[in-house]
Amino acid sequence: MSHGGGADNGVSPGNVPVCYYGAAGRVPAALERRVRAAELFMRCAACGLAVLAAALLGADRQTRTIFAVEKTARFTDMQSLVFLVIANGMAACYSLLQGARCLVSILTGGVLINRPMAWAIFSCDQVMAYFTISAVAVAMEAAMIGKYGSQQFQWMKTCHLYKRFCAQAGGAVACAVAASLSMVGISLVSAFNLFRLYGSGKGRK
Amino acid sequence: MSHGGGADNGVSPGNVPVCYYGAAGRVPAALERRVRAAELFMRCAACGLAVLAAALLGADRQTRTIFAVEKTARFTDMQSLVFLVIANGMAACYSLLQGARCLVSILTGGVLINRPMAWAIFSCDQVMAYFTISAVAVAMEAAMIGKYGSQQFQWMKTCHLYKRFCAQAGGAVACAVAASLSMVGISLVSAFNLFRLYGSGKGRK
Repeated sequence: MSHGGGADNGVSPGNVPVCYYGAAGRVPAALERRVRAAELFMRCAACGLAVLAAALLGADRQTRTIFAVEKTARFTDMQSLVFLVIANGMAACYSLLQGARCLVSILTGGVLINRPMAWAIFSCDQVMAYFTISAVAVAMEAAMIGKYGSQQFQWMKTCHLYKRFCAQAGGAVACAVAASLSMVGISLVSAFNLFRLYGSGKGRK
Repeated sequence: MSHGGGADNGVSPGNVPVCYYGAAGRVPAALERRVRAAELFMRCAACGLAVLAAALLGADRQTRTIFAVEKTARFTDMQSLVFLVIANGMAACYSLLQGARCLVSILTGGVLINRPMAWAIFSCDQVMAYFTISAVAVAMEAAMIGKYGSQQFQWMKTCHLYKRFCAQAGGAVACAVAASLSMVGISLVSAFNLFRLYGSGKGRK
């Protein structure tokens, strides 16, 4: 099969867009540029938002004196918040590394994509997306119980005692939601980058 | 641009697999068959498991007398379990419909895939996958609190009071986990079905 450029395409040269990929998975240059820019933007956004969420949660504490007993609420008191901090820390590191890779590939204009590489990136992105979404869902559930309690199971409301703590945790969860939506977008882009390699080449419409 | 079958591919006829798709996104027939079979299998599995999870939770109740007060634990007592039942009901209906579509397309051998259709299926699959994963994560968090409580926030353990209820709910959550993993697999297949349409062939714009 031929791997050549536009010239041997059997299309008049004027209609042939410049393509980054020599072989499979070629898309028009304009689409390619937009996809890469979107990927870089989302990776940076995910990194920043995840760092912000983890920092907000990590710094979140409130001490109150209740019936002469001093109690401090920290994020470590709730497993789901610890899980959220860990998930966001991982997402931030991962997004930073991938963003760097993305930037390098844009600057050098290099062809990074081969199938094993694309599979690796795609798998990691998928896992991170589901992981961050799960962490956010779990934290939101815990936040709901904290805010409204569960009478049947005698779980008391906590947020009216630790108002400032809960407000800051709410902000952190909002950042984490935004970060995980970015991760979902990224996993969509990497799915595109992977599976277009499977679109058949010659004889296509 | 050539629209023909294997013969005008410039590949020797012996190596050219029969393809289902006349136009974009052609893959070898063996891969195509395997992908379709896997999709059908996963949709059926997701449907069955989601129904099972919802039924187990819906039928789950236990009555106990605690300090002369009769109390019944039901799945409706916990928002997260209600959410899980709703999510699994939706996943079951959705998988049933999509499974039927999948079966029809296998039996008729029809070419169902065009880009808008593939985008619609892909989007729905993605949403359902993230939705079911979130529901499972939330239910698992609630199950953890039910089993271990949270001393800091004075949320008491519940499962040592309602052992049978918790065991059945655990089984339901396990089914829901399996169902949501199937949904993830399905979303992978539909990503493949969508984005291979973008893989460029020769002379594509």
